Amino acid sequence: VLNTDEMRKRARKLPTAIFDAIDGGGGDEITLRENRQAFERIWFRPRALADVRHRDLSTVVLGERVSMPVLLAPCGMARMARSEGELAVARAAGRASTIFVVSGASSYPLEQIAEEATGPLWYQLYLPSERPAAEALLARVERSGYRVLCVTIDSAVPALRQRDYRNRLTIPPRVSGRLVLSSLRHPRWTKDFLLGKVGDGGLGPVRLAVWNLAMTIANNKVVTAEDISWLRARWSGPLVVKGVMRPDECSELIELGVDGIVVSNHGGRQLDGVPATIDVLPQVVEAVDDRIEVFVDGGFWRGADVVKAIALGARACLVGKAYMFGLAAFAEEGVDRVLDIFRTEIDKTMGLLGCPTIADIDGRAIVRGSTAVTPSPMP
Amino acid sequence: VLNTDEMRKRARKLPTAIFDAIDGGGGDEITLRENRQAFERIWFRPRALADVRHRDLSTVVLGERVSMPVLLAPCGMARMARSEGELAVARAAGRASTIFVVSGASSYPLEQIAEEATGPLWYQLYLPSERPAAEALLARVERSGYRVLCVTIDSAVPALRQRDYRNRLTIPPRVSGRLVLSSLRHPRWTKDFLLGKVGDGGLGPVRLAVWNLAMTIANNKVVTAEDISWLRARWSGPLVVKGVMRPDECSELIELGVDGIVVSNHGGRQLDGVPATIDVLPQVVEAVDDRIEVFVDGGFWRGADVVKAIALGARACLVGKAYMFGLAAFAEEGVDRVLDIFRTEIDKTMGLLGCPTIADIDGRAIVRGSTAVTPSPMP
Amino acid sequence: VLNTDEMRKRARKLPTAIFDAIDGGGGDEITLRENRQAFERIWFRPRALADVRHRDLSTVVLGERVSMPVLLAPCGMARMARSEGELAVARAAGRASTIFVVSGASSYPLEQIAEEATGPLWYQLYLPSERPAAEALLARVERSGYRVLCVTIDSAVPALRQRDYRNRLTIPPRVSGRLVLSSLRHPRWTKDFLLGKVGDGGLGPVRLAVWNLAMTIANNKVVTAEDISWLRARWSGPLVVKGVMRPDECSELIELGVDGIVVSNHGGRQLDGVPATIDVLPQVVEAVDDRIEVFVDGGFWRGADVVKAIALGARACLVGKAYMFGLAAFAEEGVDRVLDIFRTEIDKTMGLLGCPTIADIDGRAIVRGSTAVTPSPMP
Amino acid sequence: VLNTDEMRKRARKLPTAIFDAIDGGGGDEITLRENRQAFERIWFRPRALADVRHRDLSTVVLGERVSMPVLLAPCGMARMARSEGELAVARAAGRASTIFVVSGASSYPLEQIAEEATGPLWYQLYLPSERPAAEALLARVERSGYRVLCVTIDSAVPALRQRDYRNRLTIPPRVSGRLVLSSLRHPRWTKDFLLGKVGDGGLGPVRLAVWNLAMTIANNKVVTAEDISWLRARWSGPLVVKGVMRPDECSELIELGVDGIVVSNHGGRQLDGVPATIDVLPQVVEAVDDRIEVFVDGGFWRGADVVKAIALGARACLVGKAYMFGLAAFAEEGVDRVLDIFRTEIDKTMGLLGCPTIADIDGRAIVRGSTAVTPSPMP
Repeated sequence: VLNTDEMRKRARKLPTAIFDAIDGGGGDEITLRENRQAFERIWFRPRALADVRHRDLSTVVLGERVSMPVLLAPCGMARMARSEGELAVARAAGRASTIFVVSGASSYPLEQIAEEATGPLWYQLYLPSERPAAEALLARVERSGYRVLCVTIDSAVPALRQRDYRNRLTIPPRVSGRLVLSSLRHPRWTKDFLLGKVGDGGLGPVRLAVWNLAMTIANNKVVTAEDISWLRARWSGPLVVKGVMRPDECSELIELGVDGIVVSNHGGRQLDGVPATIDVLPQVVEAVDDRIEVFVDGGFWRGADVVKAIALGARACLVGKAYMFGLAAFAEEGVDRVLDIFRTEIDKTMGLLGCPTIADIDGRAIVRGSTAVTPSPMP
Repeated sequence: VLNTDEMRKRARKLPTAIFDAIDGGGGDEITLRENRQAFERIWFRPRALADVRHRDLSTVVLGERVSMPVLLAPCGMARMARSEGELAVARAAGRASTIFVVSGASSYPLEQIAEEATGPLWYQLYLPSERPAAEALLARVERSGYRVLCVTIDSAVPALRQRDYRNRLTIPPRVSGRLVLSSLRHPRWTKDFLLGKVGDGGLGPVRLAVWNLAMTIANNKVVTAEDISWLRARWSGPLVVKGVMRPDECSELIELGVDGIVVSNHGGRQLDGVPATIDVLPQVVEAVDDRIEVFVDGGFWRGADVVKAIALGARACLVGKAYMFGLAAFAEEGVDRVLDIFRTEIDKTMGLLGCPTIADIDGRAIVRGSTAVTPSPMP
Repeated sequence: VLNTDEMRKRARKLPTAIFDAIDGGGGDEITLRENRQAFERIWFRPRALADVRHRDLSTVVLGERVSMPVLLAPCGMARMARSEGELAVARAAGRASTIFVVSGASSYPLEQIAEEATGPLWYQLYLPSERPAAEALLARVERSGYRVLCVTIDSAVPALRQRDYRNRLTIPPRVSGRLVLSSLRHPRWTKDFLLGKVGDGGLGPVRLAVWNLAMTIANNKVVTAEDISWLRARWSGPLVVKGVMRPDECSELIELGVDGIVVSNHGGRQLDGVPATIDVLPQVVEAVDDRIEVFVDGGFWRGADVVKAIALGARACLVGKAYMFGLAAFAEEGVDRVLDIFRTEIDKTMGLLGCPTIADIDGRAIVRGSTAVTPSPMP
Repeated sequence: VLNTDEMRKRARKLPTAIFDAIDGGGGDEITLRENRQAFERIWFRPRALADVRHRDLSTVVLGERVSMPVLLAPCGMARMARSEGELAVARAAGRASTIFVVSGASSYPLEQIAEEATGPLWYQLYLPSERPAAEALLARVERSGYRVLCVTIDSAVPALRQRDYRNRLTIPPRVSGRLVLSSLRHPRWTKDFLLGKVGDGGLGPVRLAVWNLAMTIANNKVVTAEDISWLRARWSGPLVVKGVMRPDECSELIELGVDGIVVSNHGGRQLDGVPATIDVLPQVVEAVDDRIEVFVDGGFWRGADVVKAIALGARACLVGKAYMFGLAAFAEEGVDRVLDIFRTEIDKTMGLLGCPTIADIDGRAIVRGSTAVTPSPMP
């Protein structure tokens, strides 16, 4: 497997409904496409004569050193891809010396994932609507050693996912003839999903995972400024807000005590028709003005994409679909391979760009525009 | 049926000439395409931390509250789609608590439609060239309880409809071997068109409908400022002008006493090569400067399109082809479904956009541009 | 036949080499395509409330009234399309009350065309390199009653016509096995080309036509300012220069005594990579500043295209390929039909645009831009 | 063979891995495509009334007159295309009175190429990492009579060539079943590659060529400012730096004593996502401000491309892939033919553009822009 796009092709062996649930976006998938295309409007300006014999891809994220500016984004219900799910992802992230952001809709209990992990973890929170439930959840997160809390704010309403609708994928799943038929046509996936690897313990974990997901969605609260204040008071570690798309809202978030912002359109999976995150990033970076750290996700499939985001002021990028497809295609090794691809590509890009360290990648390394130049009017 | 585009596909069971008569545009259909594509150059800027638990889609249109900012546009000869035609549309509009703008080229007498309707009606006028005929028509409209008069001004000349030409669709229809053949190949449509549902009364209504259409077209007058003055004096209710595409002409219309403007290019069906209505809308809104209400039609197939138009200053949108295809595919229930799709999509969009009410949707909710950002020149 | 594009399709019955010789352009045909696409970046702004009951398409071209602003462009060797060639075109132009610009590389002697013509004629000159030959030619042109002389200046060097090269089309034609084969596969065309209609007189005219063409090309002179002066002194009637693409050169031409300019890139058939004529037109119009008349050709296939050119300041447009395909498809009647299509489309466009006369079509009727609006930057 | 694009098609007879090694680019080949597309955003402005009867394509490059502004770019391992490799190219370049830039990764010893050459040669240097090796190499270059040294600086790190990866093309080549199979399917290429023409001497030269290539790549040094200084001190002839893509770095290079700059992105083969060279060229030309000579390569397939580069300020262009495909398709005659195509196309373009000499081609001859005009905003 040569690159992440090929990894995606390998993951086509999944049942269509599952592949689409990972791959698809909201509405007409305009934002999903735009997230990718926007990278092609950002051009590199390689520096000549730089000494790039030794490259260092490591950087510091909210006080923690990571081996490269690529974090693993929270993806709900990773068991869909492979029964080892978040456990495998946590192990791969640790091996790669980077951070795994565990989804609030994970298919394993957050404690079990934390036990399995060998590297640093963040917890992505879907805020429960009732305060006691929120209290209880935060206590569990804290107890399990998650260092950073990452609140998602772009999911106030279930999105219009037309592929899921067409595939009759509902939560909780309804057992239909169609579903049974699809399962029978993918016996290997079905066996893995339902029974897991030997010793996994049968149907219990599946039931738990589906229950978790359904509850998370059902109880997901619309997050307001008041909620952020409450979380800030309640959570002592770093607090990150995920789903910011407007530069004019950054100052309010900073005043509420937030430590980091993820520029995110939920991978094009929520509101369709929002701009590409990479187009919004520089404006958010300008508004934040170095007061807190800015992260970004959405459409990152190449190491070059990561370097572009760094040049535009991101501290690090979150990668989601790519590792989910790696997990689907080759289990834990697939996640390793995806992280490896990103590392190799970032390294080569930095070398050819004339930037031996992450700190060297700044605004001078790129130029934005639908083409590289502005047109000159006819005299 | 998931969205209006699928509804259109379902309507392909119509005879080609009929499908094309509803679906097609003028000339090379540049404007027809542009009406759609222009929406992809308008991007959402979702507001963070808004309390969107309760959404209210209702708004007030020329003094009348409607359940959502979607009106049913005037489409001539709805019987083409299904024999119940405008009667079914009027019932569905009432059920959805919104306004039906009855076409001056309707296939049922305006009185019969008014009787069937349970919600508010507008009457779209093709002004007869002779004053006595115009007087008589206005008297009928008034007597039947239509509250708003909507004069179309973009149809001075029959358009260049190449699909109709190719399909040999003429008004009145010429009975040719080709027509007979096509009818025989669509026996269900033919039976429904000619005989209607049981109790409809045979060929009489068809003859009346075709006669109506032919007369309307034959007598359609070029509308001048003098005609608007005459109508203004003659009609006591609100007067709306449909087919405005130039901001520099709004003030004259307002001075003539018009109460509303519909930015319209006739759905791309008249002059080909005019811009998309959504591109012209903000300029008209600026020129009108809140003196009267501005409406818009052309290319609305998604709830998100409606929200974009509201953000650009429209009071409401008129939807035409979508419900005609609903009518063709599933009769009255199809119209219900189309309105339902719009309602659901607008609701989701408002939730994810952070705008709980129609009044919250303003210019800050969007950004226009062929891409989301302006290019930066290379330093 | 519904429009000129269909006429082109009908002309596909020609031998490929002949069809391509008419249809093709220079180099990669970038300019050929651009000539068409540029029209889609010009948008109409229909005027409301105009009284367009009566439309008048006539205009005055260098002192001569024509029934519409469409002239017949000079196309070399019209016999390629049909044996009646320029004789048929001259008759059709007269019937349509418009001007035929006879090509300097015509397949009939200029005298014979003049005799056949019933309307006004221009003569398009490829300037012979020797003065005596030029003198003799001008004397013949004058004697035959041509009123306007139109000198082509964009053909200093034979163009890179890759389709002709691929089709082995040379001047004079080489008799190859391939040519014989192609002739046998198109017996009707071959018979018509070689023998003409009954009474045409056998191979003589063909030999003459080919000889004419070869001589014209062989003797074609690079036209300099000195040549224009010489022509101005020698020719008493109006003098038009065809092939101007730079606004900064208009004043020199006017000072040399030229009466009209044709903005032309030779239909994309000479230098590939020059802009569309419709994009250059407004700049030339501005530079000329009403001192002389400006004409334009290149990519005119729709009446709407003609109206756009008028709005941008052209006095009239020259149409070439469209009528050549009409001639190929249906002989003289095909030319009639093409002129008819232009007339109908211009008439409808004027009606829907709110411009009852040619004089009403001015800059306010259109807006230019790759989309109808300029993007607004994100706040 | 009509044009260079057809030459490329003829070269498809090569084994796929070899064709791709010549044809392919880095990463997603965005830059490879952009190099071509950028030319379509540059438009010609032909001059009227110019006397172009006699055209002169010759120009002076670093003090040496060449017959046209087209140099032969350094392409590694030309034996891949045909066993005569650089020897044939050197002879063809001499015959065409232009310069051949011999690659530092050539498949024949630089001395042998110099002996075969009849025209001027440049030597393209991959700087060895150890100074004694560099010293020795420069001594050989000097001794063999190369006049100009051209240092490549954009290859600090091996590029991400996905086609090569997919084709399992490694350096040195690994003998795999796949490789053997491919060789058997292209017996003629294999025989030519391994044995050469009669008298070539068997496998020795192949071994030498592959060894050369592998060593060059292994020892290739990251080039720093210090290296340029060292080269400047060591090399008495003109020194050219190839691979500059930023205008803000030109002054430093000039101060280091460089005599020429090649604006180059390595034909889109190194860092993917850099702009087209033709877009960067005018900025570099402006920054250099006539202090030294500026050259350009990347995407030159047409004579018109060359003329555009000259108009933007380049002294000459380097052409690579086109002649490699000529070599592959027809051996030495193929290189002749490619140079001939360029000459003919440049000549025709100059004639039609109204520029009889290279010096006449300046900024007034073109206009840049994604379309030829800037859009006018709607009033």
